[in-house]
Amino acid sequence: MMRTIRKEHGNGGKQTYELIDGLFKPIFGSEILKSGDDSTVFSLKGMKVGISTDSFVVKPYFFKGGDIGKLSVCGTVNDLAVAGLEPKYITISFVIEEGFSMDDLEKITRSAKEYADLAKVEIVAGDTKVVEKGAADGIFINTTGLGIAKDAKKMPSISKIKSGQVVIVSGDIGRHGACIYSHNEDLGFEDRIESDCGLLLDVISELMQEVDVAYMKDLTRGGLATALNEIVQKSGFDIKVEEEKIPVADEVKALCDILGLDSYYLACEGRFVAIVNRDEKEKAIEILKKYNKCACDIGTVEEGMEKRVYLSTTFGGMRILDMLYYEMLPRIC
Amino acid sequence: MMRTIRKEHGNGGKQTYELIDGLFKPIFGSEILKSGDDSTVFSLKGMKVGISTDSFVVKPYFFKGGDIGKLSVCGTVNDLAVAGLEPKYITISFVIEEGFSMDDLEKITRSAKEYADLAKVEIVAGDTKVVEKGAADGIFINTTGLGIAKDAKKMPSISKIKSGQVVIVSGDIGRHGACIYSHNEDLGFEDRIESDCGLLLDVISELMQEVDVAYMKDLTRGGLATALNEIVQKSGFDIKVEEEKIPVADEVKALCDILGLDSYYLACEGRFVAIVNRDEKEKAIEILKKYNKCACDIGTVEEGMEKRVYLSTTFGGMRILDMLYYEMLPRIC
Repeated sequence: MMRTIRKEHGNGGKQTYELIDGLFKPIFGSEILKSGDDSTVFSLKGMKVGISTDSFVVKPYFFKGGDIGKLSVCGTVNDLAVAGLEPKYITISFVIEEGFSMDDLEKITRSAKEYADLAKVEIVAGDTKVVEKGAADGIFINTTGLGIAKDAKKMPSISKIKSGQVVIVSGDIGRHGACIYSHNEDLGFEDRIESDCGLLLDVISELMQEVDVAYMKDLTRGGLATALNEIVQKSGFDIKVEEEKIPVADEVKALCDILGLDSYYLACEGRFVAIVNRDEKEKAIEILKKYNKCACDIGTVEEGMEKRVYLSTTFGGMRILDMLYYEMLPRIC
Repeated sequence: MMRTIRKEHGNGGKQTYELIDGLFKPIFGSEILKSGDDSTVFSLKGMKVGISTDSFVVKPYFFKGGDIGKLSVCGTVNDLAVAGLEPKYITISFVIEEGFSMDDLEKITRSAKEYADLAKVEIVAGDTKVVEKGAADGIFINTTGLGIAKDAKKMPSISKIKSGQVVIVSGDIGRHGACIYSHNEDLGFEDRIESDCGLLLDVISELMQEVDVAYMKDLTRGGLATALNEIVQKSGFDIKVEEEKIPVADEVKALCDILGLDSYYLACEGRFVAIVNRDEKEKAIEILKKYNKCACDIGTVEEGMEKRVYLSTTFGGMRILDMLYYEMLPRIC
């Protein structure tokens, strides 16, 4: 049987990792790439520089709270920001289907520019390809960002994670995924759920100034559960989170109930987790709350041999929270 | 009537420029972007750094002389090389259609890696998105490259172009475009035409060591004619080229005769033009001939108010060689 790419290979979870670990890493073999972070930091003539790349294929390309232009800029800028980098330059490359509305292209371009300005990143290169009708679905955008380290010593690193540290989430989770589901499924939602799509620069900048952050990760494809699993895989520790502490908006919960979805796996595009020492927990949460009142601690890093994420449920039980294994909607971002 | 994106907007010629000048530049407004080169050079803490981005949508993704993986790496590396930059890092981002052959993906990935190694660029970041069956046609790849200036003073620049300088082409033109046409059109070609897809690093490196190159441009979408038009537009000079000097392979000529194509507009993916002072012409050609025996001078830079490219024909006439205005096959690269 011919081995083929399946939808799940794009879910950001288990199958994406199988593809990366089974195909891309053995072939590309780059030591830098093997770090597995969304951005890669390397030395350029003594300066710490980071690069991140992302292609965006979200459907619909206009959604409540954003569009593919805003998402393309915020996504790449956030990847740099959580690595402790100051985003400086960004490239933007379009693949557009013949027949695409010029007005929509203009709106998307303006939106990308608006968020590039807000992020103070300069758009330094671009590219446009057009494919014939039917060869793409509307518009796909790639952005690649370049950032520099402000203070190399203060940069978050997986190696700074220690047992006893606290896991904090910057706001309520799952909004972006729920938003895209609410657009795509014919559920009769009068009001679509608003995406959390947005920039994390200001909150991260203030947090890093005041707190010695061990590690940060933005929550994207695969949601909170997948992000935490990446952290335990790379750090070697376990993480225990408490179900009752994890903030989920009522409308997101309602959508999950209707569709049988698990909010821990729903994509976010404007949320991150930060891991900090216990004695800085209160200070960190105080700062995060200025930007989103739902920010709170959700669990702890623990010594462990299993590299697992455990969820203590509201009913007093404990379950393993694994990586995302399946994806109904492939085009979440 | 709804204004929409048309195939020609992706031809790399007149309509692409209309889109860039009419929509992207006014909105993005970046001074750096306005330079209009394929790569953008800027100062990063005193170091001259250049970035180039390109999305590749070529169909078929395997063609005689290359594939989309090789093309993706060579295209971006060549954009940096002609700007006088030493390519150092590259990112690679895939958009893959559900059902795509895993074996083909592996071949393409190996091919990208092979040419990254040959170019001595490190693959530092990647991304994979999967879209549902029918939402893309096989595979699209974005590469974004970062290069540094070896010698800032020796960097080619549009402002170094002067009247009387000589225009040299690095090899026979139009192979890549002819190759893609020969695959896509049902012409009964037993042997497809081989693409010129390849790296230009070594030839450019040797040329820049020995010759004071005023300006270089690689020939891609829109071919020789479009590249020369970009040069006259940006420099303000005219260029006169001689039809009988421009090297075109017999099989490319034959295809052009059958399909009614003009070889000057056919894409190349491993050729460039260099503009040098008259007294360095022989030395430059001697170096280029080591890499491709068809390399030769094809014309001169001339004082002029028209910013035009003139072609003196073999019949003793003179015609204006404009930018590409139409594109039958949108997915040439």
